[in-house]
Amino acid sequence: MRYSQLLVPTLREEPADAEVISHKLMLRAGMIRKLAAGIYTMLPLGVRVMQKVERIIREEMNRAGAQEVVMPCLLPADLWMESGRWDQYGKELFRLKDRHDRDYCLGPTHEEVVTDLARREIRSYRQLPINLYQIQTKFRDEVRPRFGVMRGREFVMKDAYSFDADEAGAEQSYERMYDAYMRIFQRCGLKFRAVEADTGLIGGRFSHEFMVLADTGEEAIVSCDACAYAANLERAEVGRSAEAAEEAMKKLKQVETPEKRSVEEVTVFLGVPPQRLVKTIIFKTEKGLVAVLVRGDHGINEAKLRRSLGATQLAMAGDQVVADVTHAPVGFAGPKGLDLRIIADYALEGMRNVVVGANKADAHLVNANVGRDFRVDEFADIRLAQEGDSCPRCPGHLQISRGIEVGHIFKLGTKYSEALGATYLDLEGKERPLVMGCYGIGVGRTAAAAIEQNHDDNGIIFPFAIAPFHVLILPVNNKDAEVMGAAEGLYGTLSGKGAEVLLDDRDERPGVKFKDADIIGIPLRLTVGEKNLKHGKVEIKQRRSGEVTLVNLKEAPERIMAMISAEA
Amino acid sequence: MRYSQLLVPTLREEPADAEVISHKLMLRAGMIRKLAAGIYTMLPLGVRVMQKVERIIREEMNRAGAQEVVMPCLLPADLWMESGRWDQYGKELFRLKDRHDRDYCLGPTHEEVVTDLARREIRSYRQLPINLYQIQTKFRDEVRPRFGVMRGREFVMKDAYSFDADEAGAEQSYERMYDAYMRIFQRCGLKFRAVEADTGLIGGRFSHEFMVLADTGEEAIVSCDACAYAANLERAEVGRSAEAAEEAMKKLKQVETPEKRSVEEVTVFLGVPPQRLVKTIIFKTEKGLVAVLVRGDHGINEAKLRRSLGATQLAMAGDQVVADVTHAPVGFAGPKGLDLRIIADYALEGMRNVVVGANKADAHLVNANVGRDFRVDEFADIRLAQEGDSCPRCPGHLQISRGIEVGHIFKLGTKYSEALGATYLDLEGKERPLVMGCYGIGVGRTAAAAIEQNHDDNGIIFPFAIAPFHVLILPVNNKDAEVMGAAEGLYGTLSGKGAEVLLDDRDERPGVKFKDADIIGIPLRLTVGEKNLKHGKVEIKQRRSGEVTLVNLKEAPERIMAMISAEA
Repeated sequence: MRYSQLLVPTLREEPADAEVISHKLMLRAGMIRKLAAGIYTMLPLGVRVMQKVERIIREEMNRAGAQEVVMPCLLPADLWMESGRWDQYGKELFRLKDRHDRDYCLGPTHEEVVTDLARREIRSYRQLPINLYQIQTKFRDEVRPRFGVMRGREFVMKDAYSFDADEAGAEQSYERMYDAYMRIFQRCGLKFRAVEADTGLIGGRFSHEFMVLADTGEEAIVSCDACAYAANLERAEVGRSAEAAEEAMKKLKQVETPEKRSVEEVTVFLGVPPQRLVKTIIFKTEKGLVAVLVRGDHGINEAKLRRSLGATQLAMAGDQVVADVTHAPVGFAGPKGLDLRIIADYALEGMRNVVVGANKADAHLVNANVGRDFRVDEFADIRLAQEGDSCPRCPGHLQISRGIEVGHIFKLGTKYSEALGATYLDLEGKERPLVMGCYGIGVGRTAAAAIEQNHDDNGIIFPFAIAPFHVLILPVNNKDAEVMGAAEGLYGTLSGKGAEVLLDDRDERPGVKFKDADIIGIPLRLTVGEKNLKHGKVEIKQRRSGEVTLVNLKEAPERIMAMISAEA
Repeated sequence: MRYSQLLVPTLREEPADAEVISHKLMLRAGMIRKLAAGIYTMLPLGVRVMQKVERIIREEMNRAGAQEVVMPCLLPADLWMESGRWDQYGKELFRLKDRHDRDYCLGPTHEEVVTDLARREIRSYRQLPINLYQIQTKFRDEVRPRFGVMRGREFVMKDAYSFDADEAGAEQSYERMYDAYMRIFQRCGLKFRAVEADTGLIGGRFSHEFMVLADTGEEAIVSCDACAYAANLERAEVGRSAEAAEEAMKKLKQVETPEKRSVEEVTVFLGVPPQRLVKTIIFKTEKGLVAVLVRGDHGINEAKLRRSLGATQLAMAGDQVVADVTHAPVGFAGPKGLDLRIIADYALEGMRNVVVGANKADAHLVNANVGRDFRVDEFADIRLAQEGDSCPRCPGHLQISRGIEVGHIFKLGTKYSEALGATYLDLEGKERPLVMGCYGIGVGRTAAAAIEQNHDDNGIIFPFAIAPFHVLILPVNNKDAEVMGAAEGLYGTLSGKGAEVLLDDRDERPGVKFKDADIIGIPLRLTVGEKNLKHGKVEIKQRRSGEVTLVNLKEAPERIMAMISAEA
């Protein structure tokens, strides 16, 4: 392809309204242009990258036995009413009426539609398992669309839905998708991790997020420095410390702590480290109130707490409730004498002589000890993981890194099949609900995440597999017939060998061409300059390493093709 | 691909709500399923066909130098207000509001968006010409969605927009698209014609519709039996008949025709053929009233009439206006003594002694003659073409056939670039508006039209290039290990050679398999039966011709591959 015939409107300046690097670089490289908040046009370079990601996804989904379908964007409200999500979804759902005043929405996801299809077309266990996927535009009216195509209001996703006869089958389908996702992101040339994610009450280890590692990532990833354990922060378990309490119990004492409520206020006032304080927090659940104890320097992980309590609803109790049960204002709650179920984090097991609230205004207890001074009904893993925590699987330690979620796989169970009545007849002719899984990949998000992970100060450094072109041929001077002749010759030869080549045939200053080459980030640059050409040489530069090699003009195509096949 | 793992829910019965054959067969072949009126899910077989059409389109658009982009579905209202179409478009435009109460529509077409892109990114003549295309979902809230994907409310189109510096450039861009479209529909394996279509006031021959020929087509195509002339009915010219008037003029006579108003009533009553009557119809234009004369058996072509009159607005005059100018009730208007501009169809040039209205209630004139009894200001080609009419280009005759419009190319001129201020700087640095063209192909429509043209009583007969698979391998008895072994062997060998093979591995009765094979219409069927296999033979059947060949099992792959490459 010739650069002069391609719309690649690169920008020299930093775009004003772009917050993250991928957004800036996609604008600067002329890959995208904004039409409205969270709504983008993909320009030719962007389309090429999207299509490469889509092709890898398609090949791996097909290889995993999934079948491609295309469900509509415009979805009738009645299906969403059947699932109950018409009311639950809120403002994120774009809603509209047709000319007959019937309600529709723009699909933000397709569980309803695919389950409706399944209930109509799947009748027998003999049709199972089945996995239907699509690569389709989705719509979500985000409160705050931002980060370019990373969080848009209109975006392209691959979503897949599996249907199985039973749990065991669903788990196999899940594993197949896990493997496919691993191959997809590997093939895209990304450094990523599959991390365990929260499954809510479904339980089991059947929810994984695929995170592209990048310092600029929005999500925290917890992983072990010794084994393969990795999870998102919401899900991450913390290893139970094996240390026994060595310290002798001291005498319990009530101390005055006037107006000292927060961990910081109390520990500074008392001159103790926050690790010596135990926070007591009252939560409301549908099963009643519960007191939760964690160390002063630890945070509560509500997802883990909810699972430990077996509760579906969980919220911190209001001030009045706290005052009622502790007989003290907020800030002075403690476990001593509390007539509530008390759950404590594992970290409290080995602690001695701690500071707790006294259940009395302006007072705390020091040298409080579990068993002697207060009751704990249950110890559990209920806190947020921190850097350096013990691994839950091995003697290693946890580390925290940043990532961008590009894929999510999830076992749905029978939630939608039961709501919509999607059943099949088993071997004995008995009607049973289909067991479902769902599996998503953000296509634009994957491209953006790749850029977050692969760039330098000068621009994008595309992984080979998703680069818009393999090679950029850059003739330094368009006016020099020999230079242009050599460049055109290389263009013809390389294209003929199947390389994807962009020839910068524009009549621009060399500085402009070199700068644009760096911004758009094509892996290989083949520079044809007058000086080198006089000695029969051209220059190959690798965008990533910056490595420059002078090669003979005649050998250049062979060298380039070798570099391409080394990457493929 | 294995049939048992593919969702192809074929139907034995005629679907109740399908009117046309392609809609019926797409449902019966399990290619599509309806989600709501005019909104369909594409099932795996449908997706494969769509992707084949899309691939051909993409290759030919790229070859013609067009660049692929993807513009959003969700379009902000302000652009549509700038072009004036927010108000003009009416109920066909799906409109909605976002959470901030801002107006959006779902794109039915993308002139506004692409022109907005051009005004931002195109600055210099050096960037021209440029042609941007996309394959994208469109939305139109049709009054009466029907015919399956042929007239849906959500559908996939390829739309392209060219930008040139001047008319001459725009005409070259147009020709390039004409050639690309010819190649696209040829490669799809369709019998089609490019026909001239009406250009409105732009004039020239820069609007063509691409019509797939099918007896069931909605559109009439007028074409010459001798030369290459072809046009749609709205556009079709009629050759000027060279016959001179031979008959002597008779004496003008007024006759009573009580309550006889229509052509049929008058001619039956008077006992003359309709060819002897001249209809006088009063039209209103922005330039005033005009009387239009055509032969009793001819229809007025309003598009041609509008062009002849140089009018932008044209409508039949109301009863009161007719009564005012003719001094008679509707049904008795005639040219004699009319104080209006009178335009007559060419067919009237050679006519003598005709019947016309008398401009008096219940009366007509017989033996009326142009020149002697009434004035004609202008003769022109203003009637609808009919089978047997003279060709406008050669001595041949016109024939009428039926077709389905699958593509349309059109010179837009500067309509949108002027409305939105999309300009460029020419060589002299002068600001000039971009000259545009637009070019559409209905992707689903092309697939449906292919089925309208290629089917028999048993099902679809896919053209090779857009068939979901090349070969269907049909083992007659799944329980027979030898049969299945041979079928699996053929499946492996053919897939390995790059053929697209569907193996019907279902445990179904042979009758079901044969019927399904016919419905889904894969070009080649390779039947593996016990009897033939005993003699080392398998059967190749061509879906189109029905031709059956017994071949040696070992030679079958080679024979099949030869048939595939003969078609490619």
